[in-house]
Amino acid sequence: MKIGVVGTGHTKFGKAQEDIGELMFKAVHEALENAGANIAEVDAVYISNFSSSFAKQGHLPALLAEKLGVRKRITRVESACASGGLALKEAALSVLSGINKIVLVVGVEKMTDTPIEETTQILATAASKIEMLHGTTFPSLYALMARRHFYEYGTTEEHLAVIAAKNHSNALHNPLAQFHKEITVQDVLNSKLIASPLKMLDCSPITDGAAAVLLCSEESVSRFTSGSSGPIVYLTGVGHCSDTISLLRRENLTSMPAVIEAAAQAYSMSGFTPQDINVAELHDCFTIAELIEIEDLGFCEKGKGKDLVESGATKIGGKIPINPSGGLKAKGHPVGATGVSQAVEIVKQLRGEAGKRQVENAKVGLCCNVGGSGATAIVSIFSR
Amino acid sequence: MKIGVVGTGHTKFGKAQEDIGELMFKAVHEALENAGANIAEVDAVYISNFSSSFAKQGHLPALLAEKLGVRKRITRVESACASGGLALKEAALSVLSGINKIVLVVGVEKMTDTPIEETTQILATAASKIEMLHGTTFPSLYALMARRHFYEYGTTEEHLAVIAAKNHSNALHNPLAQFHKEITVQDVLNSKLIASPLKMLDCSPITDGAAAVLLCSEESVSRFTSGSSGPIVYLTGVGHCSDTISLLRRENLTSMPAVIEAAAQAYSMSGFTPQDINVAELHDCFTIAELIEIEDLGFCEKGKGKDLVESGATKIGGKIPINPSGGLKAKGHPVGATGVSQAVEIVKQLRGEAGKRQVENAKVGLCCNVGGSGATAIVSIFSR
Repeated sequence: MKIGVVGTGHTKFGKAQEDIGELMFKAVHEALENAGANIAEVDAVYISNFSSSFAKQGHLPALLAEKLGVRKRITRVESACASGGLALKEAALSVLSGINKIVLVVGVEKMTDTPIEETTQILATAASKIEMLHGTTFPSLYALMARRHFYEYGTTEEHLAVIAAKNHSNALHNPLAQFHKEITVQDVLNSKLIASPLKMLDCSPITDGAAAVLLCSEESVSRFTSGSSGPIVYLTGVGHCSDTISLLRRENLTSMPAVIEAAAQAYSMSGFTPQDINVAELHDCFTIAELIEIEDLGFCEKGKGKDLVESGATKIGGKIPINPSGGLKAKGHPVGATGVSQAVEIVKQLRGEAGKRQVENAKVGLCCNVGGSGATAIVSIFSR
Repeated sequence: MKIGVVGTGHTKFGKAQEDIGELMFKAVHEALENAGANIAEVDAVYISNFSSSFAKQGHLPALLAEKLGVRKRITRVESACASGGLALKEAALSVLSGINKIVLVVGVEKMTDTPIEETTQILATAASKIEMLHGTTFPSLYALMARRHFYEYGTTEEHLAVIAAKNHSNALHNPLAQFHKEITVQDVLNSKLIASPLKMLDCSPITDGAAAVLLCSEESVSRFTSGSSGPIVYLTGVGHCSDTISLLRRENLTSMPAVIEAAAQAYSMSGFTPQDINVAELHDCFTIAELIEIEDLGFCEKGKGKDLVESGATKIGGKIPINPSGGLKAKGHPVGATGVSQAVEIVKQLRGEAGKRQVENAKVGLCCNVGGSGATAIVSIFSR
């Protein structure tokens, strides 16, 4: 597969004044401008959004058509927090189908207008009812995964804290990140307990935001400014898998079979291996998720994630820099936008446009976008 | 385009005892059985569902993976009441892409557990906020369209009542329909006023249900029992368009540009014309919608829909039978399932499996699935 990624757009993550339609419009407008493209030449749009309950707005395809003043094939997709990666994948398939040549992808979520108790209830619709009835929440599901990982492999709270501190440090150089606040390992360990062993600073925040990318068929790349100057970035592989919605139905708690399967598809399609990846954006909704994904994506052996993290290899400048954008933890996690935001960061890294957070000589990048307690995963591989 | 449709599944529409996961499972199981297929050979699943607010359940891809005991590429799509047609289209594109060969499509909505005031609020998320703030509802938006159609073309309440009576009459022969109750034109005219000129019996009901179809690439058709005996049905064209979410942004109220555009795409892709269509399932959320679609799909000239309806041409046995299933009006309208249910009916008609509601010698069929006040439309054309 070789699909051009010729434009990126990304709003400031955090608390936005814009409504959900304006957020989409802003990201789309920037992606088109970045590519030197006109909305008229776009064949279709794929929107990712997790829940209409936040903004009390469904039918986003028609809302966006109105905002853009166009009549087009516009599709919304959803698979919990993996919605953004899913939109990217469906958009890519639509190009491979030959029906579309130029396709926009925009992810969005407007979360901060909703009271926090209602937010928790809305997020819980991404989980299994039986688990929620028994009193679990997403933090406590990931806490169970962390506890078991500690037991099996000797991972510790400190290892997780290193991940949070790294991501906050990276976000200092991302002007679009929600947090620009350096935190230490000790700050993480001292922060309020949420679901043992996870503390406040192990958890990603509630965020508003939108992100967009413009995709096109290989033959169309040269039409765009980004395709005529500088390195051209291509989406070369994408894998997708949904597994059991309940954590309790999985054989073990320390890996995510959906990630393993999606990664296998993406590696096979792209021809790249874990060793070829120069930079990755992983789904650190909780720090333990980044650790498990590091292992399940094959960046190290199972159980050795803690050593990779401890060695500094996942920092910018290390062997496999992870979440140079700041990740969900520090850049923010507007659910439906997250997977598209990951793609924006990888494209910027491969183009050499990432400023002070640039990973030197990055040629191959990977995104891993996860939904629920590891129930859904989309893995995308980009190269220049 | 030539995509095989080799299996159908459909729950009884109405008030269901099953939860949303069980409804999906039932329809999927029946579609697989109908095709003589095994879930293991299915490459991907596309789910259509309008709102997670009804069943308080999002992340349906992972819920379905768990119910089916599989790990697969499962995608949920949404575009209001046009979600079902959209899932069919995205599934078809995924086959054309070459990534998938055998793909399930399942549409579902579980609406009847939700209090009616909340149901109205949830349905309103498919509309424009500015219109809702000014006190409109979906019945009143369609009422505006009806009033203007009356003014422009001389259509009357009686013409609309004929549509409702026909669809109820057709549903008498559909064992899966919500209503099995013959109604007369006078019954419709005498029914409670909802939004003048629309009365209770001009409106589709609140419904639970699921419907599924199994699609496959042309080369894979012979693997399935339905492909080795009886006529093989193919999806030969599909069009998709999103227009302004607000009715107030349209140039006129008496046609739906999204339907016109989606139909043009589907006719062009399939090579068929309106004159070739032997049977159609249209989106009669309100009777006026069926009338406008009849015109916008080209079954007659603009403004002449009333004459076609009056002539009896849209009855079973007429020139262009419309909604032999009973339509949304009498078969029921579980929002996310509706577009897939339309496809199930057309496949049954083209296979000659429609029993007492069979349209004789039906060779080419069309589905028109609409979202919002005509804001989104998917038109699909099937042939044998």
